Amino acid sequence: MGELLVRGGRVVTGQGILEADVLVRDGLVAALGHGIVADGAEVLDATGMLVLPGAVDEHVHSREPGMTGKEDFSTMTRAAAAGGVTTVADMPNTVPPVDSAGRVADKGRDVASRAYVDYALFAALTDSNVAALEEIVGSGAIGFKAYMGPTTGGIGPPSDWSVLSALRFSRATGVPVFFHAENGPLIDGFSRELRDAGRSDPAAHSEARPPVSEEVEVARIARLAAAVGGGVRAHIAHVSTAGTLRILEENREFLSAEVCPHHLLFTVEDYAARGLTIKVNPPVRTAEHRDALWRGVRSGLISTLGSDHAPHAPEDKKGDVWGAASGIPGVQTILPFALDSALRGLMRVEDVPRLLSENPARILGIYPRKGALVPGADADLAVVDPRGRWVVREEDLFYKHPEVSPYIGMEFRGRIVYTVLRGEVIYRDGEIGGRPGGRWVTRGGAL
Amino acid sequence: MGELLVRGGRVVTGQGILEADVLVRDGLVAALGHGIVADGAEVLDATGMLVLPGAVDEHVHSREPGMTGKEDFSTMTRAAAAGGVTTVADMPNTVPPVDSAGRVADKGRDVASRAYVDYALFAALTDSNVAALEEIVGSGAIGFKAYMGPTTGGIGPPSDWSVLSALRFSRATGVPVFFHAENGPLIDGFSRELRDAGRSDPAAHSEARPPVSEEVEVARIARLAAAVGGGVRAHIAHVSTAGTLRILEENREFLSAEVCPHHLLFTVEDYAARGLTIKVNPPVRTAEHRDALWRGVRSGLISTLGSDHAPHAPEDKKGDVWGAASGIPGVQTILPFALDSALRGLMRVEDVPRLLSENPARILGIYPRKGALVPGADADLAVVDPRGRWVVREEDLFYKHPEVSPYIGMEFRGRIVYTVLRGEVIYRDGEIGGRPGGRWVTRGGAL
Amino acid sequence: MGELLVRGGRVVTGQGILEADVLVRDGLVAALGHGIVADGAEVLDATGMLVLPGAVDEHVHSREPGMTGKEDFSTMTRAAAAGGVTTVADMPNTVPPVDSAGRVADKGRDVASRAYVDYALFAALTDSNVAALEEIVGSGAIGFKAYMGPTTGGIGPPSDWSVLSALRFSRATGVPVFFHAENGPLIDGFSRELRDAGRSDPAAHSEARPPVSEEVEVARIARLAAAVGGGVRAHIAHVSTAGTLRILEENREFLSAEVCPHHLLFTVEDYAARGLTIKVNPPVRTAEHRDALWRGVRSGLISTLGSDHAPHAPEDKKGDVWGAASGIPGVQTILPFALDSALRGLMRVEDVPRLLSENPARILGIYPRKGALVPGADADLAVVDPRGRWVVREEDLFYKHPEVSPYIGMEFRGRIVYTVLRGEVIYRDGEIGGRPGGRWVTRGGAL
Amino acid sequence: MGELLVRGGRVVTGQGILEADVLVRDGLVAALGHGIVADGAEVLDATGMLVLPGAVDEHVHSREPGMTGKEDFSTMTRAAAAGGVTTVADMPNTVPPVDSAGRVADKGRDVASRAYVDYALFAALTDSNVAALEEIVGSGAIGFKAYMGPTTGGIGPPSDWSVLSALRFSRATGVPVFFHAENGPLIDGFSRELRDAGRSDPAAHSEARPPVSEEVEVARIARLAAAVGGGVRAHIAHVSTAGTLRILEENREFLSAEVCPHHLLFTVEDYAARGLTIKVNPPVRTAEHRDALWRGVRSGLISTLGSDHAPHAPEDKKGDVWGAASGIPGVQTILPFALDSALRGLMRVEDVPRLLSENPARILGIYPRKGALVPGADADLAVVDPRGRWVVREEDLFYKHPEVSPYIGMEFRGRIVYTVLRGEVIYRDGEIGGRPGGRWVTRGGAL
Ligand SMILES: [Zn+2]
Ligand SMILES: [Zn+2]
Ligand SMILES: [Zn+2]
Ligand SMILES: [Zn+2]
Ligand SMILES: [Zn+2]
Ligand SMILES: [Zn+2]
Ligand SMILES: [Zn+2]
Ligand SMILES: [Zn+2]
Repeated sequence: MGELLVRGGRVVTGQGILEADVLVRDGLVAALGHGIVADGAEVLDATGMLVLPGAVDEHVHSREPGMTGKEDFSTMTRAAAAGGVTTVADMPNTVPPVDSAGRVADKGRDVASRAYVDYALFAALTDSNVAALEEIVGSGAIGFKAYMGPTTGGIGPPSDWSVLSALRFSRATGVPVFFHAENGPLIDGFSRELRDAGRSDPAAHSEARPPVSEEVEVARIARLAAAVGGGVRAHIAHVSTAGTLRILEENREFLSAEVCPHHLLFTVEDYAARGLTIKVNPPVRTAEHRDALWRGVRSGLISTLGSDHAPHAPEDKKGDVWGAASGIPGVQTILPFALDSALRGLMRVEDVPRLLSENPARILGIYPRKGALVPGADADLAVVDPRGRWVVREEDLFYKHPEVSPYIGMEFRGRIVYTVLRGEVIYRDGEIGGRPGGRWVTRGGAL
Repeated sequence: MGELLVRGGRVVTGQGILEADVLVRDGLVAALGHGIVADGAEVLDATGMLVLPGAVDEHVHSREPGMTGKEDFSTMTRAAAAGGVTTVADMPNTVPPVDSAGRVADKGRDVASRAYVDYALFAALTDSNVAALEEIVGSGAIGFKAYMGPTTGGIGPPSDWSVLSALRFSRATGVPVFFHAENGPLIDGFSRELRDAGRSDPAAHSEARPPVSEEVEVARIARLAAAVGGGVRAHIAHVSTAGTLRILEENREFLSAEVCPHHLLFTVEDYAARGLTIKVNPPVRTAEHRDALWRGVRSGLISTLGSDHAPHAPEDKKGDVWGAASGIPGVQTILPFALDSALRGLMRVEDVPRLLSENPARILGIYPRKGALVPGADADLAVVDPRGRWVVREEDLFYKHPEVSPYIGMEFRGRIVYTVLRGEVIYRDGEIGGRPGGRWVTRGGAL
Repeated sequence: MGELLVRGGRVVTGQGILEADVLVRDGLVAALGHGIVADGAEVLDATGMLVLPGAVDEHVHSREPGMTGKEDFSTMTRAAAAGGVTTVADMPNTVPPVDSAGRVADKGRDVASRAYVDYALFAALTDSNVAALEEIVGSGAIGFKAYMGPTTGGIGPPSDWSVLSALRFSRATGVPVFFHAENGPLIDGFSRELRDAGRSDPAAHSEARPPVSEEVEVARIARLAAAVGGGVRAHIAHVSTAGTLRILEENREFLSAEVCPHHLLFTVEDYAARGLTIKVNPPVRTAEHRDALWRGVRSGLISTLGSDHAPHAPEDKKGDVWGAASGIPGVQTILPFALDSALRGLMRVEDVPRLLSENPARILGIYPRKGALVPGADADLAVVDPRGRWVVREEDLFYKHPEVSPYIGMEFRGRIVYTVLRGEVIYRDGEIGGRPGGRWVTRGGAL
Repeated sequence: MGELLVRGGRVVTGQGILEADVLVRDGLVAALGHGIVADGAEVLDATGMLVLPGAVDEHVHSREPGMTGKEDFSTMTRAAAAGGVTTVADMPNTVPPVDSAGRVADKGRDVASRAYVDYALFAALTDSNVAALEEIVGSGAIGFKAYMGPTTGGIGPPSDWSVLSALRFSRATGVPVFFHAENGPLIDGFSRELRDAGRSDPAAHSEARPPVSEEVEVARIARLAAAVGGGVRAHIAHVSTAGTLRILEENREFLSAEVCPHHLLFTVEDYAARGLTIKVNPPVRTAEHRDALWRGVRSGLISTLGSDHAPHAPEDKKGDVWGAASGIPGVQTILPFALDSALRGLMRVEDVPRLLSENPARILGIYPRKGALVPGADADLAVVDPRGRWVVREEDLFYKHPEVSPYIGMEFRGRIVYTVLRGEVIYRDGEIGGRPGGRWVTRGGAL
């Protein structure tokens, strides 16, 4: 493999923006700077472009194994590549769930041949496997996902003792525990009330999962994490309420949090135009909550962006509000969304790599191998034209079922021109190049 | 029934102390003041004495029905009378549990013939009866008790939805919900760890139920109560940790709290001298927690004192730390404890009726019929000699099994001289007078 | 002096409402109750009426000495009597200021002959008299007033050291320090900006004294009080902002607070209709602040109501927004306002005596002699017809300059029928009875 | 000027540690990476060394103009160079104070010939110059220093209005305002009390400036900054109390903070061994406060380290506790202290450039020209041997009066081997090289 020189661009990191060439050698960043001598290197002209570390989407659902009618590793990672995402972390609520060392190892090997970007794998946390966390990490799991409420695949919520045990393990090893924080009994109760009252409009979905159904779980996790002590890596996925942010604020030492693009974009007002395409868990909420989430993004209280890419077949999204599947595909639009938000002034450009590369990689324990644009790191890059525009069309999306995306028709400022994975250009102006070359990223691989 | 004039004493209420005679007519307080003309009235000389409203012990376990080997209504209420307690609220974790309208009605009628003081009855809150709360209150229940962890009688913890539903009912009606806030799975987990480590000393009991096992439940209740909104009557029984007080502080609008004498008196240091007599749930803790509880009492953050009178037979308290029963009898010592604390300066004398009469009666919804010493109220009085002393002897205690009391040998400042129930002197200088005359107090009876 | 029996009314205290007759003997409450035998007593029929302890207005400006063109002790106390106020505490920012033991003693003696109700006197706290606080209290001062910003009479703000010293004295003795919390330099700066910008509309007054000009002083006082420690009596007069309430919430142990009727009633919207009659310091604010004040009243965070009766002659209130005097007369309308608010459901009826009698008397150190309706207390009563209405007319107001009242034309529910001072009916249905009989109340007189 | 290649070291930034060579060209960092081709470049062998961005000491007192008996720009900047500090920000409390555009310009030109490292200049904020802030910044000031209490040079504290005005200016322009937060009247009062009580031991200095004397000012600044709104750059210098940290926590959006090495190292216990060498304002405090400061450093609540280098002549430090001068020289030991702390595990190695280079440069508005080790930045480096040790000797210190340093005799882990200023090696193994080449850094110079 020869050298690659990305020349003339503006390198964006969480620390700022600087004009610098990037020299890649052997799949790693060899040097950053001006006037770098690299005879014989392939040159990528990045004049006028932003050069970012490739995005690390810490929260995707490839639907493998078992639900490949909705999506598969190939379609998901092709979409990732097209979206400037060079590493994905795949969730374990599949059929069967990924909840043992064996299933982690099997999945890791199995999907390799279909991976267009690098990937890491989560294992589910259950009452049954809590004694085997070390073994599961040993077989390659990047972290654990705890479903506090009901989820796809029928994984039951771990008991408070299992959560506490997993958090102790996290504190001792640095392995993160991600939480889907919604309360099953409350959601069941509110849903029953609304159905009994004859409600079947889309907004009933949001009312059936009101803020308390999230916050009661976040409050519980906060207490357990605080009991375990500082240094624990308890990460709340897809936060969606102002009350959750207040709990985060009082427990900064013990909790971190992810927010999803759809909670920053959509509110209950959008059901009118977009219908059940935006049915998702936790649900979209009022503008007041959305504004609180933006404040959390800007203040640093929220540390990561994750897509919660949750694809479905069109038939799954059919039916009334109670029957349609929850979930929005988003791995291809997360970086465009983030860039667009920065270019509109909702956050700073430096926040894009901070939220979407550096912090996810840190939380997953793979920084600076991933998530950083520094000498020695994997040469994963997204090269973006900030003057470009992208009006999302169905045919642009590489998902198995692009038509269910609520982003179709939206315009994003900025345009992804190249995606580079360990020195190889895997996406170039609308085209995915070549064969799947993604690798499995495990904790052992951190620098 | 003739008139009774309590003459020459100092009346103590939550608002202050005043010199006043108390005239009783038809079982009610007729007048308070100086120079009240009452020809023909029986006179009780209270010169030099404090005259308090009779104590309302909001939290006792008579063990009826089903566990009368430990205690019964007769022994419990005789002890109450001797301790200046004129109303008790009895808990429902019995065999069978009091968890239906029928069982409330049955118990209310059944115990009447054995009651030496007035009594109110709690019903258990369960997933099965949450739809019947109105009916249960209609049959006479004063409120509900939710056992968030395991308890005597095998009542399972209500789901979050049931708790929320009960709190909505509370907000609409003013009926209180009391919470035993301990988390079963955490206690099981910690216990297993300690047993596996070979621990069998008394202090292992406290370590098996660390602060987080209480606080995680209090935090959850706080969120649910806040979701229901201001005006809800969520009352945390027997608070025992500094962390719980911080949660109370941030949720004053939604939560109130009870503390027990044993958590204000004993710490883990006392296991050495008192052994498993002080095994109780939640457990006694370190001096740091006890001191925080005292601050909560003085600042008003804690609004009631309750005995959590939980008697056992001596054989129940035998065995090692894991086998011995949890619970301390205390209905006879709660007012002496409170007076002693006031006379030692740990709180003000006015705090005694505030914590032990007025606030419990308010929370139970029976104020000012009970808990107040004002014209029109039931003439329930405790007349106390502040210069007296009581060194607790086994033979002074009216319990079925006085020997398990950890208070034996302790000295209290102050001495209860008379207890008056609706105008009748039911206790006089060590003697219970006459036959059981206690009546069932229900919400309908509030002024 | 014979006996007086107030018969058939409903006695309202902070603890509740009860049907009871009140027997008065020798100017004191002798008894409360039913069927009190009192042959030969004068009888006041209170059937259908509310009987409240007389109001204690902790914050009035009689303008004596030195500014009797605005008001004097006679007009002020006659208005008080007509308004159900039986004790007033008069502020020291007069000409000359009441800032020494001699001036307290002189004023106490001097005004006696013109006092229709009982009165207490504040002394100003200054850098010059901070070493003489004990002597000043010895001469009869009920407490100290610290003007943190500029005030009538040219009393300079005390230094932080003087405030700390006064708070230490307060903690040791229980003598309260009241604070007018506004910051002079900020007000000067904002005013200059607004004048330079050509503003002369009434709302400019509120903008010239924005929330920060109050809150920066409250925050400072909170720190100093916390450094002195629990038990200090630092009382913030006329709180007016939501931010102040947040500081109070975090410093409950160290601070208490008063609110004025005008801040609960008026907002900047009212300048349009009422003009500079509602010019007052601190100024009226937006509805958001007013609503926060009401929440503070209902939650108990605010413990007293005070009128800040600050009368002016009509010519003083003339001129543009920068020249007109600040201050609203209010001693006669404070109890009607409170009753009206309770009868409209903005607070409970029991809150009226709590906020306007009990708590002010406690803070001034004269409870339960004043502020309580219990045997042994001064027989100060306000008898009110809750079915009555009062549309305020200029000729109803006993002030020297009733025409400047912004309350003219407003309708209050409830009507004061009798005011009783130490057993004497001093106001009866619109008429002030007899000669001035008010007495000087000092700390020595507390029960 | 030729090229310089710093080869084989480990580059430390706030984001992590990476093995990389640093190529310098024209005084700027040209490239970072591996295998950089640079024929003809001078090579600095950094094998086994840490390569850090040069330290930016945001808080020094050169004592120029007017007090050169204590220190001067030459001695101060030579010490800086020897200590790995490549930029200093000099404070304005001199004789005369630097409080006008003219004096900034004069000082900036005057000291140039004596500066061995780059320098920035603060101007004092006073009531007199608050209208001229823009002009003062235009003449080269990097920011403003507000002395809330008395200081060297007799600069009076700015009024609340002046502070608010300066903070508005800060918000609009990004120019920082640094605060010396101590309250004069409180310190005077406490001092008088202690002197009157006959105290003259060193610890009396700490008692004369108790936590409240700092916190009351921090609380005031917090309120004013919050009133101005988010984005303001209010920076509290030398924080020293646990209470200050709580205020910072509640006002993260509005305040940032600096801590000094001496507050992290010394406590009142150290007066016994070190006497008045550690007399400093604010004073050293108890271990409880010091531990809270360390927690603030680790959690990120405190964002910068500054030396508050405040040199004196030995005769100034003589006399009793009331007469001796306050201040500790520290510009040469601040980076060694930080490295030592990291190598002992009190913080992470990455925290050193974060606290001592990146964040100070950001706050001063000169990042990433200064404080960053990225292509395009000034090539200011400190090259450190982490295996070395430095036992501080008087003869090692380049101050005018090294003998007053309390650090003499202390051992620091790590040893500074080279200091590089804009590509020139200005310090090499104990020797300052060549002539003063420091340049004046103003805001205009930011990238
Ligand atoms: Zn989820
Ligand atoms: Zn998900
Ligand atoms: Zn219990
Ligand atoms: Zn119990
Ligand atoms: Zn005032
Ligand atoms: Zn006033
Ligand atoms: Zn300073
Ligand atoms: Zn300084």
